[in-house]
Amino acid sequence: MTAEDLLRDEAELWHAATHHPFLDGVRDGTLPADAFARWLCQDYRFAVALTRAEARYLANAPRDDLELLANGVLAMVAELEWFERKASERKLVLDVPLHPTARAYVDHLHALTYQPYSVQLTALWALERAYLEGWRTALPGAPPFREFVEHWTNETYSAYVDALEAAANRVLARGGEAEWEAFRWVARYERAFWEMAYGDGDV
Amino acid sequence: MTAEDLLRDEAELWHAATHHPFLDGVRDGTLPADAFARWLCQDYRFAVALTRAEARYLANAPRDDLELLANGVLAMVAELEWFERKASERKLVLDVPLHPTARAYVDHLHALTYQPYSVQLTALWALERAYLEGWRTALPGAPPFREFVEHWTNETYSAYVDALEAAANRVLARGGEAEWEAFRWVARYERAFWEMAYGDGDV
Amino acid sequence: MTAEDLLRDEAELWHAATHHPFLDGVRDGTLPADAFARWLCQDYRFAVALTRAEARYLANAPRDDLELLANGVLAMVAELEWFERKASERKLVLDVPLHPTARAYVDHLHALTYQPYSVQLTALWALERAYLEGWRTALPGAPPFREFVEHWTNETYSAYVDALEAAANRVLARGGEAEWEAFRWVARYERAFWEMAYGDGDV
Amino acid sequence: MTAEDLLRDEAELWHAATHHPFLDGVRDGTLPADAFARWLCQDYRFAVALTRAEARYLANAPRDDLELLANGVLAMVAELEWFERKASERKLVLDVPLHPTARAYVDHLHALTYQPYSVQLTALWALERAYLEGWRTALPGAPPFREFVEHWTNETYSAYVDALEAAANRVLARGGEAEWEAFRWVARYERAFWEMAYGDGDV
Repeated sequence: MTAEDLLRDEAELWHAATHHPFLDGVRDGTLPADAFARWLCQDYRFAVALTRAEARYLANAPRDDLELLANGVLAMVAELEWFERKASERKLVLDVPLHPTARAYVDHLHALTYQPYSVQLTALWALERAYLEGWRTALPGAPPFREFVEHWTNETYSAYVDALEAAANRVLARGGEAEWEAFRWVARYERAFWEMAYGDGDV
Repeated sequence: MTAEDLLRDEAELWHAATHHPFLDGVRDGTLPADAFARWLCQDYRFAVALTRAEARYLANAPRDDLELLANGVLAMVAELEWFERKASERKLVLDVPLHPTARAYVDHLHALTYQPYSVQLTALWALERAYLEGWRTALPGAPPFREFVEHWTNETYSAYVDALEAAANRVLARGGEAEWEAFRWVARYERAFWEMAYGDGDV
Repeated sequence: MTAEDLLRDEAELWHAATHHPFLDGVRDGTLPADAFARWLCQDYRFAVALTRAEARYLANAPRDDLELLANGVLAMVAELEWFERKASERKLVLDVPLHPTARAYVDHLHALTYQPYSVQLTALWALERAYLEGWRTALPGAPPFREFVEHWTNETYSAYVDALEAAANRVLARGGEAEWEAFRWVARYERAFWEMAYGDGDV
Repeated sequence: MTAEDLLRDEAELWHAATHHPFLDGVRDGTLPADAFARWLCQDYRFAVALTRAEARYLANAPRDDLELLANGVLAMVAELEWFERKASERKLVLDVPLHPTARAYVDHLHALTYQPYSVQLTALWALERAYLEGWRTALPGAPPFREFVEHWTNETYSAYVDALEAAANRVLARGGEAEWEAFRWVARYERAFWEMAYGDGDV
């Protein structure tokens, strides 16, 4: 099994995970500012949880993946600082209650700590790739959102996703149903996360 | 803070967690057999996860609570056997894919393993009490469901919930927002779990 | 690989783990009462840690082993109560600082929680079997120690060790170096634990 | 409680942890090359374990400490690479069996993952500070060992230890017996780790 197999065999799920009216609204500027703000606060809380969960995945990683994941954790911490700076500029309070969708996704990250490393890495790669691909559909981003779109599609991030994919391919070579299932849940949660912000606005 | 405070201050959420058309349908016999079967399979998968999660809570418990939780874990294992026997009698396959609601609740149980014991115990008490109270509303149960209703409202189970409540009150005496939040999430998930089975039938 | 393979190929280590002047002194009554008391307090602290660690192993166990380990954890809790009763009868304070040997063994039990279940179960079986075999060499036990020797060699305990061995054989069939290493460390620690009490008396 | 309190009140233990014939031998060149090599291999295995354990401590850290620990984990990974390069230059095989002393210390790091963050951070600070102080006693280092001594006393490392101490002081302000005990065990293990290499040579 390879990363490409997952992307191809679950093409419909993956498309839904990476294309959404929320992202369209970011691109064409029709997304209401408060919908973006609500999504951003939930995404920050997700990022905090990912930082912690990724550290636990690192603790299980083989020697060859330690540098990749240690850089990943450090990049997440820098990302938290960036979120906090942007929130401060916009006078947003980041410490919001978790939306049920964010709660479920955050808890899934923590629950994965009890799965084998191969499952953890598959999920980590999938979520980072979905995020990158999703934001690419919003390029170049309407002026109020442009710096976010650029930040989440930059070359450093893209290179990190490539490196995760190379590592994921090593574990997927011996992967099975557990890795496949992790991929599907990440795709569903990514979809739901965009959905949370847009739509009925009850974030 | 006491268990009673939580139940009183979150009375609306608690009522929703313990009263549902699904339970009404079990009582008056209008619940379709296949809706019950679908719910039962998800509940089995929840029970497996609870067995494992509860063992991890036990590992954090103070000396005085070890017996309570060890008996709780052993009772969960007996419960799994009971589920399997009932499923076998009804020719049900228990190894179904997790419904998104069950996935979220199961992952929440695992995520709680990284919270302090006081939060874990609060959640454990709340979920067992909600289950007991919910099933009591279905008493005596229409004939096809009666043995289930009796099983989930019997005196042994009721005494276990009382013992959990006494232990929860000890930790809640020094409890705060984290325990309160755990209570609320359990109440929401209990509601959603009944909802999953009934309603649109897309379990 | 089987449990018998381990016992046979590491016969020297195993003999050292299960035969010791401490046990001889229990049998012939030459062991000073205070040496026994010091060992007992360390063994109690070990038992508390094993109760917690075993609960974590249970959380990783396959469905078929859940009952075995849940009964094991509950038996450990009963064992703690028994230690506390015996200590109370003898006016011993159980809450002593850990001896370095006990510290190392206790920490090893916790560190094993990050190993695969097959390694955890191998270690659990090995430590229970070494304890049983060791105490059998002390039968029938000099009068001051007789109730302890009888307690740690009784049929219930012996049947539990047999059940662990059957389960261990299932995982050892696909076992490798990690399980082998776990067995060797347990054997070394069991030896060291007897050694701690006897000898230079600096428990 | 402050870091200084611990260092002062446990001065004897701390002196033993940071002064040793092994370090004297590194300074004056009397340490046999093979004793150093054996110690180095054990220290590498310790470093691998610390990388993993520190990632788990990070997962528990408050927001303010995430950057410190993420940089710490990344520095540990760079340290592993450095060990591997030095070992390769010296034709050393790093994948040696753990010495009992290293086993006990490594397991202690893992066992600490189940302690509160304040205890984990206290232990992490103490072990890094002991290492730095110990190597400073070996300055400038006899020619065959000089690059090691310089590496383990450089300014980057010293600044990291200072940052850990500042963070430790924040948690120690509300610390108690558990943090004190963690400090003492680290001091004892640091002592034992030097002892392992020197002395009877049975590494």
